[in-house]
Amino acid sequence: MYTEIRREAYEANLALPRHGLINLTFGNASAADRDKGVFAIKPSGVDYDELSPENMVIVDFDGKIVEGNLRPSSDTPTHRCLLLAFEGIGGVVHTHSTKATAFAQAGKPIPNFGTTHADYFYGEIPVTRKMTPEEIASAYEWETGNVILERFKGLNPLDFPGVLVNRHAPFTWGKSVAKAVEVAVAVECIAEMALMSMQLNPGLQAIEQELLDKHFLRKHGATAYYGQPE
Amino acid sequence: MYTEIRREAYEANLALPRHGLINLTFGNASAADRDKGVFAIKPSGVDYDELSPENMVIVDFDGKIVEGNLRPSSDTPTHRCLLLAFEGIGGVVHTHSTKATAFAQAGKPIPNFGTTHADYFYGEIPVTRKMTPEEIASAYEWETGNVILERFKGLNPLDFPGVLVNRHAPFTWGKSVAKAVEVAVAVECIAEMALMSMQLNPGLQAIEQELLDKHFLRKHGATAYYGQPE
Amino acid sequence: MYTEIRREAYEANLALPRHGLINLTFGNASAADRDKGVFAIKPSGVDYDELSPENMVIVDFDGKIVEGNLRPSSDTPTHRCLLLAFEGIGGVVHTHSTKATAFAQAGKPIPNFGTTHADYFYGEIPVTRKMTPEEIASAYEWETGNVILERFKGLNPLDFPGVLVNRHAPFTWGKSVAKAVEVAVAVECIAEMALMSMQLNPGLQAIEQELLDKHFLRKHGATAYYGQPE
Amino acid sequence: MYTEIRREAYEANLALPRHGLINLTFGNASAADRDKGVFAIKPSGVDYDELSPENMVIVDFDGKIVEGNLRPSSDTPTHRCLLLAFEGIGGVVHTHSTKATAFAQAGKPIPNFGTTHADYFYGEIPVTRKMTPEEIASAYEWETGNVILERFKGLNPLDFPGVLVNRHAPFTWGKSVAKAVEVAVAVECIAEMALMSMQLNPGLQAIEQELLDKHFLRKHGATAYYGQPE
Repeated sequence: MYTEIRREAYEANLALPRHGLINLTFGNASAADRDKGVFAIKPSGVDYDELSPENMVIVDFDGKIVEGNLRPSSDTPTHRCLLLAFEGIGGVVHTHSTKATAFAQAGKPIPNFGTTHADYFYGEIPVTRKMTPEEIASAYEWETGNVILERFKGLNPLDFPGVLVNRHAPFTWGKSVAKAVEVAVAVECIAEMALMSMQLNPGLQAIEQELLDKHFLRKHGATAYYGQPE
Repeated sequence: MYTEIRREAYEANLALPRHGLINLTFGNASAADRDKGVFAIKPSGVDYDELSPENMVIVDFDGKIVEGNLRPSSDTPTHRCLLLAFEGIGGVVHTHSTKATAFAQAGKPIPNFGTTHADYFYGEIPVTRKMTPEEIASAYEWETGNVILERFKGLNPLDFPGVLVNRHAPFTWGKSVAKAVEVAVAVECIAEMALMSMQLNPGLQAIEQELLDKHFLRKHGATAYYGQPE
Repeated sequence: MYTEIRREAYEANLALPRHGLINLTFGNASAADRDKGVFAIKPSGVDYDELSPENMVIVDFDGKIVEGNLRPSSDTPTHRCLLLAFEGIGGVVHTHSTKATAFAQAGKPIPNFGTTHADYFYGEIPVTRKMTPEEIASAYEWETGNVILERFKGLNPLDFPGVLVNRHAPFTWGKSVAKAVEVAVAVECIAEMALMSMQLNPGLQAIEQELLDKHFLRKHGATAYYGQPE
Repeated sequence: MYTEIRREAYEANLALPRHGLINLTFGNASAADRDKGVFAIKPSGVDYDELSPENMVIVDFDGKIVEGNLRPSSDTPTHRCLLLAFEGIGGVVHTHSTKATAFAQAGKPIPNFGTTHADYFYGEIPVTRKMTPEEIASAYEWETGNVILERFKGLNPLDFPGVLVNRHAPFTWGKSVAKAVEVAVAVECIAEMALMSMQLNPGLQAIEQELLDKHFLRKHGATAYYGQPE
């Protein structure tokens, strides 16, 4: 039981250091099975080379551990909050990838300067407000999810498949956790390009709407023509 | 049939991630057989580890698929436009390599600051103008080629074997697709050096004409003396 | 005898280049056995691929070589000074990792801008004052330790498990030398993030106290809930 | 005959891409046998994976090819010029390593900001003046050597084992070509640190003389105590 999400979560967690997104044990990935009302997530503070499909922790959507002897990632409540609120997604990824985290620490969204960005996000990569002392002192990781949801009022999470948590780091998501990993790779790459573009052209404006539409929509939605027919 | 260009295109496409020029599936390479009036190009949105010489798509110079069950790269019309216009070239490469793309997003050419650059380009690496809403709304990828051709009026494409498409990313080319890959590697490296040189010396002028002549011409043209006799 | 600290020091020294923290032979790690009053440390100027547990040098807390035919690292007196003063630590690591060293050369502490930093340090990563000509002319490496101790008056070395020596480079430590290696990796990553955050937001303030408390204390101390129960 | 310098030159040339100092075929290394009055150098424009001890080209100190069917590196006259003038050196390395080349292109020496630098150079890493149109038009590569020698009037080449050629890139040297490779690695690393230190502290002054003396002299000269006794 839960074999498929165990495998998906395991492979996604392993993919993060392979893509250079993880230093030490910062970062985690979860894969949901909405029919069964559960998700699989990385155990907390375990080295990447000790992970296996079997030691992924199975948690239900109320936050109870269904299967597993290890503590789940301390960020589990954030994953749960996002999986509950964003019904179209199948997985969440959290990293402290260097360049994206630099934007998060600075409290700055990543401006959309080009087509690489427009292939993934339908506008800037948003940043949350800072969390209040009350939010930090209470259920911190759950409130981290809430501050993301607050920022996403009026935004479609599949048009903006990621966010920077202020002072913290990026979270990404997608229809599958594999897609969330892909977005995490893209966010890191986009962050590096954006900083360099700003250094080259400090007054640089965001990409023109027609080019944003073209690139985002050729990959996403009903008129997409990128990739192979599904 | 088409064995040779299938192999060349396949090897060029594989070389791109090996040189660190590709994140995810951004990027593609094509190899032309002008006698047969066709070129081989990467299929769209296929992972690099699933590529083979056999799944390269064969397209003729009118844009019709001659062989192949997969959709060709969505950038195929840009490749075709360049191969038609630049008769001396045998292959085209497109990447979103990080540093070169940062210049493209910023709408800035890469200034020629030194001999590394002068070994490959006979002046700055040009950037196109932005595309118009009409160009974007019509045959976008074909018009991407046209905006490159507009920038190349009066320029010899073998003296300037690449370009930055504004808001987008670099395209490079050469007598062979292998040479186009080499130029793509050089462009990324040159972009990184150029940004750092500008940070060290904000008013830095372009390389002196005599040194540009010396380096470009010792590698290119009738009086070249670099490398082994051919 | 000393088998365990030989192995720990050997593994820590090998981990440094694997994590990209070492260029050439810059850097060394030591592991202490407080019961036996000795520590194992890398021999001086030996290539990383020639290291073995057997050629680690065993030095006692008075600085005398107990076992070993090779000279110990020239930085041995700094390690000894720290191991003597910081009674809760079991190992010391010294690297010239690029980004952290850039801060050290500039004489600047690494400001605490986010949760990645707060997971490891309970405030900024401190920098020492410059050493005086007299300190440099006398027992230089021992005085390097003393200038660190001067900076740590009033600081708990387990709350601040590392330092930048002005004009020089980072030293880190921990309950074990393996932990000191982990901190060295974190310091390099934090340094890169901090420089980028400052470039994005030149007036950026340090992380809010409540978020610092939350992140540092969820990993350290009596109320920690990160990782698996020990 | 010449077996030893063939092997040394071959190994040094292979070490350059392994250390990340070489993009494409930019770069070359030579090893001298002063008793026989010859040096071994990389053939021009040959891929790194086609090199062998046997295809190193043997050139005498008058510039005549003694053994070899391939053209030697086009930079051979620069190597010969340095080997003739700097009698204490046994090998020369030339790279276009990214960060050091950025300084060379900008026409800026690398300031000595810390002990990493001071371990290798007894002051800033010098940059030559620009070459004149006459020097470029005549025996360009030989004159590249001469402009280095002009910069080194009054400098001991073993105290300053490398240089940045203005608009071009670094050359390094040492008692052996293996040492010249080591210096080339250090120069690239030092360049990256220096740029970051300047970004952190724009008015940063060079390292204090007493610390420079301490670090340079603990590794070099009669009172050195770094590494193992020779």
